[in-house]
Amino acid sequence: MSGAPTRVAVLGTGSWGTTFALVLAEAGGDVVLWGRDAEVCRQVTEEHRNDRYLPGVALPVGIRATTDVADALRGASVVAVAVPAQSARAVLEPLRGLLEPDAVVVSLMKGVELSSDRRMSEVLSEALDVAPDRVAVVSGPNLAREIAEHQPTATVVASSSAATARRVAAACATPSFRPYTNTDVVGVELCGAVKNVIAVAVGIAQGRGFGNNTTATVITRGLVEITRLGLALGADAETFAGLAGMGDLVATCASPLSRNHTLGVHVGRGLTLEEAVAATGGTAEGVKSSTSVLDLARTVGVDMPITAAVVAVLHEGLPVDRMAQLLLARPHRAEGVEGAHEELPLPRPTA
Amino acid sequence: MSGAPTRVAVLGTGSWGTTFALVLAEAGGDVVLWGRDAEVCRQVTEEHRNDRYLPGVALPVGIRATTDVADALRGASVVAVAVPAQSARAVLEPLRGLLEPDAVVVSLMKGVELSSDRRMSEVLSEALDVAPDRVAVVSGPNLAREIAEHQPTATVVASSSAATARRVAAACATPSFRPYTNTDVVGVELCGAVKNVIAVAVGIAQGRGFGNNTTATVITRGLVEITRLGLALGADAETFAGLAGMGDLVATCASPLSRNHTLGVHVGRGLTLEEAVAATGGTAEGVKSSTSVLDLARTVGVDMPITAAVVAVLHEGLPVDRMAQLLLARPHRAEGVEGAHEELPLPRPTA
Repeated sequence: MSGAPTRVAVLGTGSWGTTFALVLAEAGGDVVLWGRDAEVCRQVTEEHRNDRYLPGVALPVGIRATTDVADALRGASVVAVAVPAQSARAVLEPLRGLLEPDAVVVSLMKGVELSSDRRMSEVLSEALDVAPDRVAVVSGPNLAREIAEHQPTATVVASSSAATARRVAAACATPSFRPYTNTDVVGVELCGAVKNVIAVAVGIAQGRGFGNNTTATVITRGLVEITRLGLALGADAETFAGLAGMGDLVATCASPLSRNHTLGVHVGRGLTLEEAVAATGGTAEGVKSSTSVLDLARTVGVDMPITAAVVAVLHEGLPVDRMAQLLLARPHRAEGVEGAHEELPLPRPTA
Repeated sequence: MSGAPTRVAVLGTGSWGTTFALVLAEAGGDVVLWGRDAEVCRQVTEEHRNDRYLPGVALPVGIRATTDVADALRGASVVAVAVPAQSARAVLEPLRGLLEPDAVVVSLMKGVELSSDRRMSEVLSEALDVAPDRVAVVSGPNLAREIAEHQPTATVVASSSAATARRVAAACATPSFRPYTNTDVVGVELCGAVKNVIAVAVGIAQGRGFGNNTTATVITRGLVEITRLGLALGADAETFAGLAGMGDLVATCASPLSRNHTLGVHVGRGLTLEEAVAATGGTAEGVKSSTSVLDLARTVGVDMPITAAVVAVLHEGLPVDRMAQLLLARPHRAEGVEGAHEELPLPRPTA
């Protein structure tokens, strides 16, 4: 870290944007945060806090925040974007001319643009008119608050260009935040979108009163079906066993802060979807994406029994008690992603 | 399940042996349990309970228990073994002539025979003089008590013979216990032995006060290094991402009943190894196996940084606070099992 510090811009003053700004600053970057709320920006710059989105965390004094996006982008060689997924295109299109010509762009966002079915890295590339090899995504077991508290964690920085991935990894590596690089952008983004459906399934099982075996089984077999879908879409199986797949899924399913997990728990306890949404305090990503993931799986001819069971419970009125029976009574087969379809006689319930 | 029920013997009346006997009986088997304690056997047969090793669980009335091993083995076409790993050879050698000629033998045991470094399926095969293709192992996210309570779970039945694996899977499939077959015996047994070391590492991190990100990172990167070792020893990478690998590891790390995890928590809170062993109420498998696993990894030239850190903390006096620094400060690299050794400049601690 010799010479002048890297100029970095972070777009979005939510909890993840603010936390990633903290990481970039601790990694040695000269960070400017952009947001729309003047009071949040003033507090970040003057008081080194963001009480609204990351209360209780002391931010590095070097972070400056501004409502002027041109100011934030000027001279920035790394631009990280953490705005709401569905409004990203509209926020970014006006910024096209403002990026430095050699800047790399980092997506901190998860999910899929509903109007276009585009992954977030594709939205960034199109909206900002930046070549895909200058776009990276960051994803992993990264609950924002724990990172802000300097608890050790690792993450994946993926880009179709290994050089871009390394450049972003170097900009965010700190003694407690360890980035690994990867060139499987499709796999990393798919993990981020589909894991929410599996988190709902785990929540349902736990709400129904099941313990660690069931949780571990749903996580493991859930990851197998995500992997199967990923392989059909050209992703790399190792990504799913890595930090953006298994790592993020395990952290999400363990966190009481995950909306998807919490909503599943309410459904498992017998609430209707409407009641569960109300009890969770808003809808969860996995509720919407479960149906699109299942459609996608059917289009490419992939079997996703856990996702299908979640869709049946959430959207088709399947009683929760029937869900376990449904999953366990399927024909037996060999383990593994490409599992030979070896069938055994179905077990009969005992008296 | 038409025709006469399968005669099954289970050797060992501990919690896992008794639970697996319950599963086999519920799958339709005619189960005879063998144990040395006459009172435990009497209670299983007459009262359908095992208060000593599985208190509070009502056993199927069809299970009979005996102290006469010849009686248990007579006519049994499936023989499941759940005796202590280190005494298995001595217990089994006298039984050689008593098995039915076509019987398949199932290992329910985890670990390695210390005197010979043999895996448990090898010990069974040698001690009973049974060909390896008649031996299977069962392993997965299988906390005994939750299975006895009929919580849904899945498991792996592995044998070098796919037909043997299917035969054992058919004998133990019930509406709440779902077996998947696999032919990677080495991988499945390696998972069972090495996961205890990773569970200790997770416990240390949690005892030190770290949360879900750190736990998920240690589990994920721990599984990567187990996989790397497995590949060097001829195992199949998919096994490690499956129920016997990831599944068992996730269940073990979530369970307050795991000795390895509990011991790690005590160490993470600052106890010495001796104090932690005392507080845990006995030594944990991972303490012993950490050193042999690291030796094995060095012999085959595999890098296992988390295992090395556990050995350093448990056996070489490395302070817990140095463990996270040690792991996070290694040269950066690409994600994945075969990860290209791409190095980045080390991050410098910030002020």
